[in-house]
This record gives sequence, C-alpha cells and structure tokens, in this order.
Amino acid sequence: MIEIAQFGAGRIGRIHAANLAASGSAKLRYVVDTHRESAEDLAGRYGAKVVDTKTALADPKVRAVVIASSTDTHADLCIRAAKAGKAIFCEKPIDLSLARVDACLKIVSAAKVPMFVGFNRRFDPSFASLQSRLRAGEIGDVEQVIVSSRDPGLPPMSYLKVSGGQFRDMTIHDFDMVRWLLGEEPVEVYAMGAALVDPAVGKIGDCDSVMVLLRTKSGKMAHINNSRRASYGYDQRIEVHGSKGRLMAGNLTPTTVEKADSAAVTSDKPLYFFLERYAEAYRHELAAFLGALSGKKKMPVGAADGRQALVLAEAALKSYRTGKAIKVAP
Amino acid sequence: MIEIAQFGAGRIGRIHAANLAASGSAKLRYVVDTHRESAEDLAGRYGAKVVDTKTALADPKVRAVVIASSTDTHADLCIRAAKAGKAIFCEKPIDLSLARVDACLKIVSAAKVPMFVGFNRRFDPSFASLQSRLRAGEIGDVEQVIVSSRDPGLPPMSYLKVSGGQFRDMTIHDFDMVRWLLGEEPVEVYAMGAALVDPAVGKIGDCDSVMVLLRTKSGKMAHINNSRRASYGYDQRIEVHGSKGRLMAGNLTPTTVEKADSAAVTSDKPLYFFLERYAEAYRHELAAFLGALSGKKKMPVGAADGRQALVLAEAALKSYRTGKAIKVAP
Amino acid sequence: MIEIAQFGAGRIGRIHAANLAASGSAKLRYVVDTHRESAEDLAGRYGAKVVDTKTALADPKVRAVVIASSTDTHADLCIRAAKAGKAIFCEKPIDLSLARVDACLKIVSAAKVPMFVGFNRRFDPSFASLQSRLRAGEIGDVEQVIVSSRDPGLPPMSYLKVSGGQFRDMTIHDFDMVRWLLGEEPVEVYAMGAALVDPAVGKIGDCDSVMVLLRTKSGKMAHINNSRRASYGYDQRIEVHGSKGRLMAGNLTPTTVEKADSAAVTSDKPLYFFLERYAEAYRHELAAFLGALSGKKKMPVGAADGRQALVLAEAALKSYRTGKAIKVAP
Amino acid sequence: MIEIAQFGAGRIGRIHAANLAASGSAKLRYVVDTHRESAEDLAGRYGAKVVDTKTALADPKVRAVVIASSTDTHADLCIRAAKAGKAIFCEKPIDLSLARVDACLKIVSAAKVPMFVGFNRRFDPSFASLQSRLRAGEIGDVEQVIVSSRDPGLPPMSYLKVSGGQFRDMTIHDFDMVRWLLGEEPVEVYAMGAALVDPAVGKIGDCDSVMVLLRTKSGKMAHINNSRRASYGYDQRIEVHGSKGRLMAGNLTPTTVEKADSAAVTSDKPLYFFLERYAEAYRHELAAFLGALSGKKKMPVGAADGRQALVLAEAALKSYRTGKAIKVAP
Repeated sequence: MIEIAQFGAGRIGRIHAANLAASGSAKLRYVVDTHRESAEDLAGRYGAKVVDTKTALADPKVRAVVIASSTDTHADLCIRAAKAGKAIFCEKPIDLSLARVDACLKIVSAAKVPMFVGFNRRFDPSFASLQSRLRAGEIGDVEQVIVSSRDPGLPPMSYLKVSGGQFRDMTIHDFDMVRWLLGEEPVEVYAMGAALVDPAVGKIGDCDSVMVLLRTKSGKMAHINNSRRASYGYDQRIEVHGSKGRLMAGNLTPTTVEKADSAAVTSDKPLYFFLERYAEAYRHELAAFLGALSGKKKMPVGAADGRQALVLAEAALKSYRTGKAIKVAP
Repeated sequence: MIEIAQFGAGRIGRIHAANLAASGSAKLRYVVDTHRESAEDLAGRYGAKVVDTKTALADPKVRAVVIASSTDTHADLCIRAAKAGKAIFCEKPIDLSLARVDACLKIVSAAKVPMFVGFNRRFDPSFASLQSRLRAGEIGDVEQVIVSSRDPGLPPMSYLKVSGGQFRDMTIHDFDMVRWLLGEEPVEVYAMGAALVDPAVGKIGDCDSVMVLLRTKSGKMAHINNSRRASYGYDQRIEVHGSKGRLMAGNLTPTTVEKADSAAVTSDKPLYFFLERYAEAYRHELAAFLGALSGKKKMPVGAADGRQALVLAEAALKSYRTGKAIKVAP
Repeated sequence: MIEIAQFGAGRIGRIHAANLAASGSAKLRYVVDTHRESAEDLAGRYGAKVVDTKTALADPKVRAVVIASSTDTHADLCIRAAKAGKAIFCEKPIDLSLARVDACLKIVSAAKVPMFVGFNRRFDPSFASLQSRLRAGEIGDVEQVIVSSRDPGLPPMSYLKVSGGQFRDMTIHDFDMVRWLLGEEPVEVYAMGAALVDPAVGKIGDCDSVMVLLRTKSGKMAHINNSRRASYGYDQRIEVHGSKGRLMAGNLTPTTVEKADSAAVTSDKPLYFFLERYAEAYRHELAAFLGALSGKKKMPVGAADGRQALVLAEAALKSYRTGKAIKVAP
Repeated sequence: MIEIAQFGAGRIGRIHAANLAASGSAKLRYVVDTHRESAEDLAGRYGAKVVDTKTALADPKVRAVVIASSTDTHADLCIRAAKAGKAIFCEKPIDLSLARVDACLKIVSAAKVPMFVGFNRRFDPSFASLQSRLRAGEIGDVEQVIVSSRDPGLPPMSYLKVSGGQFRDMTIHDFDMVRWLLGEEPVEVYAMGAALVDPAVGKIGDCDSVMVLLRTKSGKMAHINNSRRASYGYDQRIEVHGSKGRLMAGNLTPTTVEKADSAAVTSDKPLYFFLERYAEAYRHELAAFLGALSGKKKMPVGAADGRQALVLAEAALKSYRTGKAIKVAP
C-alpha cells in the first residue's frame, strides 16, 4: 500500500480521499488542513491522522502527497514535498505565476520525484477513449480541434478576484485538452473575450465569455469557446477533425429518460457540474497516478504539461488585452 | 450502523458487500458461504468474519441479512432469518416453486420482519426516474407498456437446466417491471416462445426468445420481448404510453464518443451486462433497503412483489405450453 | 408516357396526381370523381379531362388506373379495370370483406393485368432501406419484429363506423409491415384491444388501442402496438432483431433544432401525420408502379399482399373477440 | 403568374427552373445560356424559349430574372436587368471584387428594382426555424455563434483557381450565417488557414482548412470552421449560445436506420452535398423571392447582405495573409 499525506480537506480533497480509499492500492495516512474541523472529519472517515505539514513530510512511510489545498499554496507544497523526496499529485494550477511555476519545477526536477498535475478531463472515459482512438489513427491525421467548455454559473466575485482570471482559471483546462488532442504544440494564440454574463466581471478587468484560436507549426488549428454561464448546466464537448473522419464526445446526463408530449420531445440536461460530470475522471486520474508510482505505467500528465497550459493561458490573456495574435514557444 | 450477515460470496455477493461498505450506514459482520475461500476473501476485505448460518443468525448484533447465495437456498434462509427476527434482503427469486414461496412468505409474514426482494431494475436511475414521473402524472393515465430486455449471450446449458426456465429466470424481471409501470395488476397473460438462439435450448424444454402480452382489468396492456442473445450487448429499454404522452428510457453506453468517417457514423454499444448496466441500481437498492430499516421510508419492493412476478412467470409458461391466454388472480 | 385514368380526387388522390405529374413517365388523362368540383379542379391542374368511369375505361390510350376513391368502390373498380385490360394501382384496402376481395382478385388474375396495392410504408426511404439491408443479411436471420404505429388523433366517429374497425382500417398497414419484414408468413395471431382513448369507440364495438403478437411456423415472432391517439404526433417505428444484430428505423421531424435551457433539452415532435411523414413514400410507390409497368422491375407489392394483410386483420379481430390465439393459413 | 427570364442552364439553373415550375406562381419564359444544348433542354422541359440576353430583357412581359450563370457574369447581368427594370434573383456572389459589387449595387439601387441574393442556407428549414426562434427570444440575448461548414471533397484545381479563394468562395456562406444569427454586424475578423487537405492548394496561394473568429461592437462573438474535405460527407451545423440557453441545428441523413451489432451502433452519414442537403432550402428561397415580388413580404436577403458577406470575406483573407485581426466597417 502506498501511504499518502493529503493537503486540503475541502470539496476536491474529499473526492481524492474517497478515491484513495477505494483504489485498493493506497492508504491515507495524514490529512493537513488549516481548517481543523474539516481535517478531523476527513481523517476520521479513513483512519488517518491530522498533522502539520512538517510532520507529514518528515514521515518516511509517506511515499506520496496529494496537494488539494488552495492554489496559492501549491507551489510551496510541491517544493517542500520534492525536497522530502515524496511523489507529488498536485491539483491544477501549479501556480498562477509562470515565474513561480518555473522556480518550483526546477526544484522538483532536481529532486527527481515523480509529479502529476491534476488535469482531470484527460481521464474522463469519453475523452480518454476519443484521444486514444485518435492516437491510434482512427481518423487519420489531426487537422482541427474544437473544445466547448461552459460552466453552469458565474462563481462569486470574491472567487473571481483571486482566480487569476478567465484564461488561467477556466480556459487553462481547455488549453490542456487542445495540446493533448492536437499532439503538436500550439505556436500562436488569438483570443477574444467579453463580460457578457455580468458587467461586474468586466469591471475587475476580467471576462466571462471567450473564444480562442490556436495554431501549430504544421498548420493544425484549434478553437475553444467558454462561458461562465450555461443556463442548461455544464457543457463539456470535444470534436476532432482528421484527414479520415471526425470524432466527437459529448455531455453526460443523469438519466436516459425522454418524454414526448403535445409540446415537444424533452430529455435531460447535462450533469450539473464538474463533481458529477468528472466523478469517474477523478477516480481514473488517481488510479493513473498510483499506477505510475507502482512502476506499471509512466506518469501520464506531468509538470511540463501544467507549465505549458499556463504558457498558453498567459498568451491568450495577452492577446485578449492587445488584440493581437501572440507567438508561443512550444 | 446496521450490522449485516451476508449469505453468498459469489459475483453478486461481492457487489452487495462493496455497496454495504460504501453505504456509510451498514457494516458487514459475517459472511457465510460453502465455498470457504470466497467467504474468507470477501470477509477479509471488509473486516468481517466467516461463520456458519447458525452462528450468524444467533448473534443479536446482526440486524439484517443479505441473501445472495444460490437460488435453491433462498427460501430456507428467508425462513431461518425470519424466525431469528432479522430483516431480510433477498436476491430474486425467492424460489422457483410458488408453493414454496407461499410457505416461506407465510412464515416471514408471521415473524413480522421487513423483507426486500432484489428487483434491482426498479433502482436504475433512468427507470426509477421514468416511473416516478409516470406516477406523478406527466403523461396522464398509463395505457401501454413495452419492455425490451435482451441478454448479451446464452448462459451455459448447465445453468439453463437448473434456472427454472426462460420465464422464471429471465422474464421474471420484466414481469416485475410491467407490474411496477402499469400500476395495476395484470389479469391475463399470453406468451409465445421459441429456441431461436440454440436448438439445444428447445431440447431441454425451454426457449430463448419470447414475446408476451399482458392485460389489466381496466384494459391497460403490456408487451415484453426477450432474447438470450443480443449480439450488440445488453439491451434494456422501457417505453410507456399514456393518455398525454410517451416516456422512454434506453441503454447506457461506456462513452459518448461518436465517429463519422467514409463508412458510417458509429457510436458505442450498450454497456455489456447487468453488472455494468445496473451497477448504480445495485447501490440504490441496498440504500433503499437500509433506508427502510432506518425507518425513513417504507420497504419499496417486498415479498408480495417477489411472489406476484412468479405468478406471472408461471402463467406465461403455461400459456407458452398450451397456446392459450391464461387468467391470473391479481 | 403512360396515360392514366384516376378515380378519386380527394386528399390522397391529389397526392397521387401530383406525383404522376412529377414522375416524368406518366400523364394524367382522366379524372373520375362523383364530386364534380374536386374532379374539375384536379383535372385542370394537370391538363386532364373529367369523364365517367365507362368513358375512362373504354379509352384504349389509358394504360393504367389509379384507384383512390372511397374504400367501398375499390373492388368494383378493380374488376372493371381488369376487364378493360388496364394495369391497376389500388389504394389499400381492396375491400373490407375477404369474400369480395377473393372474388375481385379472381377476375384480376384471370385478366392477367398487373396490380399494385398501395402499402405506402414499404416505400418510406428509412423502412425500405432497413428492409433491403435485412434481406441482404446484415443482421443474420430475422428473429423478432416490433412495429409501433400510433396515429396522432382519433378520427370522427362517422369515419370509424364505416372504417371496418381498428384491425382492418389501421393495423392492416402493420400486418403488411410484419409480413414484409419477417420474410415468412405468420401462422398464428393473438390480439388484445380496448377503447382507452374514447369509450365511445367501445360502444360501437371497436377499439382504439391494441397489442398483437404473431408467430411463423419456424418460430419467428412479431409484435404490433397501436393507438389512435399519440399526443406527440404520428409515431411510426420499426425494430428488427436478427441473429447477428438489430435494425431500427424511427420517426422523422420537421427540423433538427435542439434547444437546451434551464428547463430541459427539447427537440421537435415527429412529423404530424401520414401526408407529411410518407410524402416521399407516396412518390416512391408510384414510381415503383410505373417502373414495373415499364417492365424494368417486377410489381413490388401485389394483390396477394393486399389479401394476406386482410386475412391477418380478420384473424386479429377474431382473436380480440374470442380471447383466443387464431391460426392462419399462410 | 410572374414571368421569368433565367440566365444559366447548368446544375443550379436546373434546380431553380424546377422550383419555378413547382411554385405555382411563376412561369419560365426564357432561358439564356451560352451552352445552346443545355439551354434548349431546360427550356423544353418547361415550355420556355431560348433567346439571347438582349431579347430576354427587352420583353416587357418578363418581370424578373434568375441569374444562375457563371460568377463572372453576375454583376453585368444585374446591371442590365436593373436598367431594364426587372426584379433580380442573383446567385451568390454578386462578384468577387468589392469594387465591382459596389458599382453594380449603385446602379441596382438607382433603378429601384428589388434584388435577392441567393444565400440558400437561410432557407434551410432547420436553420430558418433556429433563427426565427432565436429572434423570438427563446434563448435570450445572443452571445456566441458557432458555424461548422465542411464540404465533402476538394473541387478540381481548375475550379479553385478561378473561385476567388477559400474565403470568398466557401466561407462567404458562413459569414452570411454569422451576420444573420448574431443580429449585429461584426466589426473585427481574425482568420487562420492552411492547406491541410492538399498541398497543391497552398501552391496557388489558397487554403482548404480555416478557422475564423468574429466580434461585434457589443462583444458578441462567432467562430467558423471550414474544411474542403469531410470524409463523412457534407457537415453543416450551427450552434448559438444565448443568455438563457443554447440552440443547435445539425445534419440531415438519408434515412433514420440504425444498426447495432457486435462491432458498434451505426447510423447514416449526412446527406452528401448541397444539392441534397439544401434541396428544400432552394425551394423556399425561390418562394421567398416570388412572395416578396407579390408584395406579401419584404425581400428577406438583399444586395446589402451580398455585399457585407464579401466585406467579411476580404477581411478574413487579409487577416489570413497578415496574421493580424482586421477591423471591418459594419
């Protein structure tokens, strides 16, 4: 059993802890959270102890850490875990500042510890199947990728103010999807954005609705569209066009029930939000991390992926602000 | 925590044990199985003990039993559990003989213990939602019900010989669905059957492909179609026509991936078989049983339901053999 | 150009006349209808003349007749056309009485004129494609057929009284579909029926909701479900299960528009009724009739098909009245 | 009856002539085409005469012209028809040069003749329904529009060389869709393109795969993706996101047949190309033109629409060539 110290006992922390317990190959040893009550509650469910960071990282029985605390603590915890020789599972983003990410990754790299960045969507069964069929050549060479990613509702302004902004907070997931699907690094980004959902978002210098184009050196293209508010729920779709066909993956629904009556034919809205839609993805990503630690497979999404998605997010932000297409070093 | 003794550590037993553990409101105390190794393995995973039936039922800490052993042991275990004052969760069918079912239910009834019969499909999220919307009047009065239920492949002949035959083994689930959806008891059954999948099935006096019609006193109608072999997987669909519309619920698929190429547009086959398709249903049915024990809700599917499905199965068998429509006491 | 005399200038007559004009290979020469005004209007549109039956049939330039007049005139017109040596396109049914059908077909057969019975659904592009792929062996041997056929609303009681009843008026189309799809004649029929839409239908000895089972000698089975009222429109679906898979064909909709909002995902109801749903089928059936006259292809649906569907309808009616399964001579 | 002179007897000319005949409100009087044989054939089918341009336009009985000749003749024919006082139905584009379009429209405007530009997609039943529901406010305010438009295969190089290039030849239809759906003029265009289908396209300075973004003054956004080759057929979809929901319209298929077997679930590819997919759209657009001439409705898509789509195409071309976002005067 791989013994784990987990940082963060909030919403996403509870998901990871449950998946660790169900994995059959890991055991939660420590929970660390500044909110004592949450930490105690979570530790209690899985027979773990609440300790501080230092204690958790000093224990040689701890082989890996799960970092699910607030974003501003990620880089520091990665550095401390790396120095302690622990394998790292870190929720995205590593940090909102590219300079800090670079500093962090330099240390992680020097420490030669395995690191996994939590781009959960890669582990959604539909998206994972699509990508693996794509790589297997089912539709020939990739030509165009379209990622539609729309949240059900605007988060509170208090969150938005510290989120890093639309591109670094929300679109960053889609940049990772685009990289993963294209199979070739984008070298140019053009982004449009506006505060169409709520003008208050514009007043803090952010936007809530964006459209982005990306291009690779060989001419492959990708489009991302985002909105912070899809009244019908959480809209998560991908579409890839290749030289020999098209692959699409769509939304999941709570049920398959369809009603036909004198008004219309109606069916379910998509599953409401990421906890529901990506429940299986969270299970699979943790299993992939643990599997890589067991040496069975290589780490499927690492530090460099976390960094490159941020590079694209920063380029998009710059494009949005300047109105110009921005070159990106692949 | 409700402490449980479970009989049976086979395929379905493992599912119930995992769901008990995940429920948060029950604890597996004992596992009983003639196959010692399976019992030990299962008990080991959940901190339970392997004991014999007598010991398990004698322990006053055991409040309920889960009967997931072979069909021929169900009635006897129900009787013994009832006499020991335990609440009963019994896999369907209670027994293949109506006389034995009646004898068993008489004792259960006298013992006044709660009893739940494992008609898992009622707890499938899509079917459950359809039925509750139906009862809520969304499509007016029920008029016609259609249940399509097709297994992916013929079981071994050794199983078929002791299965009780097509109607008691497989169609019995659909009879329960029909009763549950119609909301009124069928009073007449007509059934056709043939061994279209494998003539060997016909040689043992059974059939593998059937079509059934049922009628209630007020004129509502239902149709069931079955096959032991659907080359595309496990086909489980329901369709209800009411005075104001139609409700349908269909198959689930592993992914939402759709491919379009020069040949066709292709998508996933249904989830392969009942363990996959009804994974959520198994979770929900156990939660419903435990919830009823906690007194929060009434037992949603009880001994009388188990009995009446068998009554319809016997009527269908008689109809199939005689070529005549058979009256049924509701 | 094949010159045509058409009997009947009503709703269905106008459709056939338009399709004749558009066919490019036929010309409407005469229109015969007791309702003078309708006849004049229709003839005027296509440069035809209004004449009486005798004149129309006496003209040697008329090679074929289209019989789209009221049902009670079909058999007599078939006989007179056959005696005049004209090829016959006759709307279904040939007659509501099997005895009269037999008398009529004897004369048609003796006259050796080609005869086509208007089972339009065989020419619906989706159904035709399904059936031809079925015959091509795409899903192996046929095992079970399901035909769902539901009208949008109850016709007036005045119509129902002379319609010949549910089985001969409405289900007859489905009996033809079942024969065509099974590829083997049914030898037994069992039917249930009730007046669920309107009790007034029951008072005239008819029913408005039926479920039927049919069986062939080799054990293939078919199910038909009908209602005179589907609040969501005209529901026309077929489903065939074979040894190697399943083929289904569903409803058509006016548009592909799908809306998702906070309430649900909604899409179009099916096309409203047979004139819309089977517009293409009417074109194709007439083309098939004209093509057969040109000697290019054999008559795809003939007098014997019209007769056998009526035989099944009568058996179903008898089953409905007696509660017994009825044997049918194939 | 509105008497018509039609210029062009090729593929699209034959469609318009057939729709004129079927409309019931127009009569084809003259056909003009440099290819005498085609002109004679088409005129023969509808009782029209083959004449030269001068004769056709000199006849006061001719009220309107249908211009379906080669693109390079459109502007000149519009000018001559306008001077002759004829109403104009002109296939898109009016011309590939914006200067010539402006010169032409100045004369048409001065002549005060009605003019219709053949943006057929606006008349596709699904797209038309979507747009009218959008304008009716079903999903609130428009925020983002996505147009996917992919042809089944690369046209011959000989065509591509005189086509005006990807943006003016193909994307122009999508620019019109975007304008029509947004309901507000785009003020900025950014376009990416590459020759992914065939490098030979790149050698003549054109591209065959493009992605475009457009923005309006108020911040609404649109995305277009194109390819000259979709191996699965003709892919024509639109998706509009509004403040209260989403509207989508998809592809049409030849049949609704779905097959499930041991390999997969398969269904039809989209209708092959524009003649099949937009057959109804062509009927409806001509009906709209004739209806507007009858004074019943206003001309739904006029000269200014033809011009503005070309303005956007030129901006996209400039963006593609310079790598910069291009401002557009609305």
